[in-house]
Amino acid sequence: MNVLIVYAHPEPTSLNGSLLDFMVKRFDSGGHTVQVSDLYAMKWKPVLDADDFLNREPGAPFDAMRDSGRAYAGGQQTADITREQEKLVWADAVVMQFPLYWYSMPAIMKGWVERVYAYSFAYGIGEHSDKRWGDRFGEGKMVGKRAMLLVTAGGWASHYSQRGVNGPMEDLLFPIQHGILYYPGFDVLPPFVAYKIGQGRVDAEHYASLTDSLGKRVDEFWSTEPIPFRPQNGGDYDIPALTLRSDIAPGQIGFAAHRTDIQS
Amino acid sequence: MNVLIVYAHPEPTSLNGSLLDFMVKRFDSGGHTVQVSDLYAMKWKPVLDADDFLNREPGAPFDAMRDSGRAYAGGQQTADITREQEKLVWADAVVMQFPLYWYSMPAIMKGWVERVYAYSFAYGIGEHSDKRWGDRFGEGKMVGKRAMLLVTAGGWASHYSQRGVNGPMEDLLFPIQHGILYYPGFDVLPPFVAYKIGQGRVDAEHYASLTDSLGKRVDEFWSTEPIPFRPQNGGDYDIPALTLRSDIAPGQIGFAAHRTDIQS
Repeated sequence: MNVLIVYAHPEPTSLNGSLLDFMVKRFDSGGHTVQVSDLYAMKWKPVLDADDFLNREPGAPFDAMRDSGRAYAGGQQTADITREQEKLVWADAVVMQFPLYWYSMPAIMKGWVERVYAYSFAYGIGEHSDKRWGDRFGEGKMVGKRAMLLVTAGGWASHYSQRGVNGPMEDLLFPIQHGILYYPGFDVLPPFVAYKIGQGRVDAEHYASLTDSLGKRVDEFWSTEPIPFRPQNGGDYDIPALTLRSDIAPGQIGFAAHRTDIQS
Repeated sequence: MNVLIVYAHPEPTSLNGSLLDFMVKRFDSGGHTVQVSDLYAMKWKPVLDADDFLNREPGAPFDAMRDSGRAYAGGQQTADITREQEKLVWADAVVMQFPLYWYSMPAIMKGWVERVYAYSFAYGIGEHSDKRWGDRFGEGKMVGKRAMLLVTAGGWASHYSQRGVNGPMEDLLFPIQHGILYYPGFDVLPPFVAYKIGQGRVDAEHYASLTDSLGKRVDEFWSTEPIPFRPQNGGDYDIPALTLRSDIAPGQIGFAAHRTDIQS
């Protein structure tokens, strides 16, 4: 299988750098082909702006949606964007690896999403009617591909637990797992999260336990059950309001209502 | 009062550009002094990296926390970072205005947070013991200041409602409102959110209703009740686990448990 790892950490000798190397080798020894988009090393341009699109009318107001759609359709995106889109098309699996910065992905990775996820490529696809609302949330160009987050956090697991002060990690990751990965059609595996990894705090035993768990996740990548998010156009939602039908998970609200495996 | 607006939209003639102008004038006519950090116009550097800190040992591995703390303490941050920190110190109120990109703030604004929120400035402050876990979540350098998000979204309000497919807007904004604003001590006002604002979809009537509501929010900025998040060191949490005490909001989990006004 083809594996794309999108990676954002500024320091190659960090724990993240080691986990990346470990994961690449492990996929490799499983017979898979790996490409890494190392965003810091590539000096990835993080800001979506008019310079991304080569066929804009000079002086016209910039509209991210319209301009990205036109450039994608006309083959007039910058080469760096096209290259990343080709990697996504090539990949059977995508891992996004990053340290949690202020409760989300680093800016450089957010900018990868904003620029690579062009209109007509990752969104703005399919019919919008009273039966369907675009090919998204379970449909879209990434259908049949798997994705997983690998996240490191300085805080403790308890700080990110159901009643932890930071909010539950699953909820903090929902906008990414559901809104960025499930949206264009990925099957999203449960995240791999390493807690309490601040400076000097990962000793040999901790590291061995991390690589042991991560190795298993890599080995079981193709058989792991994805998070059972609800497909948008599968009957669970009223369209176009896009609210859960009253007989689906009655009384449930919030992120968890969009998975079939959690009852409040 | 002193008002800082941190603004991220690539196109000045956009709806966001108009709302910014409107808001600046309204604060101004209320007798307040406004500064705008227009991140796209400033060509804000969005990536936190070793170049941000002028006193690093050559060749030493980069550590964002350690290096930013040292540079902050030694007055060796780049001028753009220092300038934004000074604006935050100057401000009595901060508005962060942005279009929702992939369920969060644009990369350029995320990069503002990552670079301006230095160690010892916005985090890593105060005692860590079994009684207190740093000056954060209700304490910190921004205590006494107010903050508000102004967010525009292409989707409909129902898509972001309690049972809407995107997840509730309040929950999508929790990592920002709680994790970025309440963390260093801001009182966070309820967000101002404009829905369904895609291309050509805001007619004169819609625009009038938006500016009418926004004007009221500006006029009432100093008397609006902040979101009642729970202070971390105020007795509601076990320390250092940082989980809610069992007698506080018993049975409640998730983001809402960290506010005193929502019962599940």
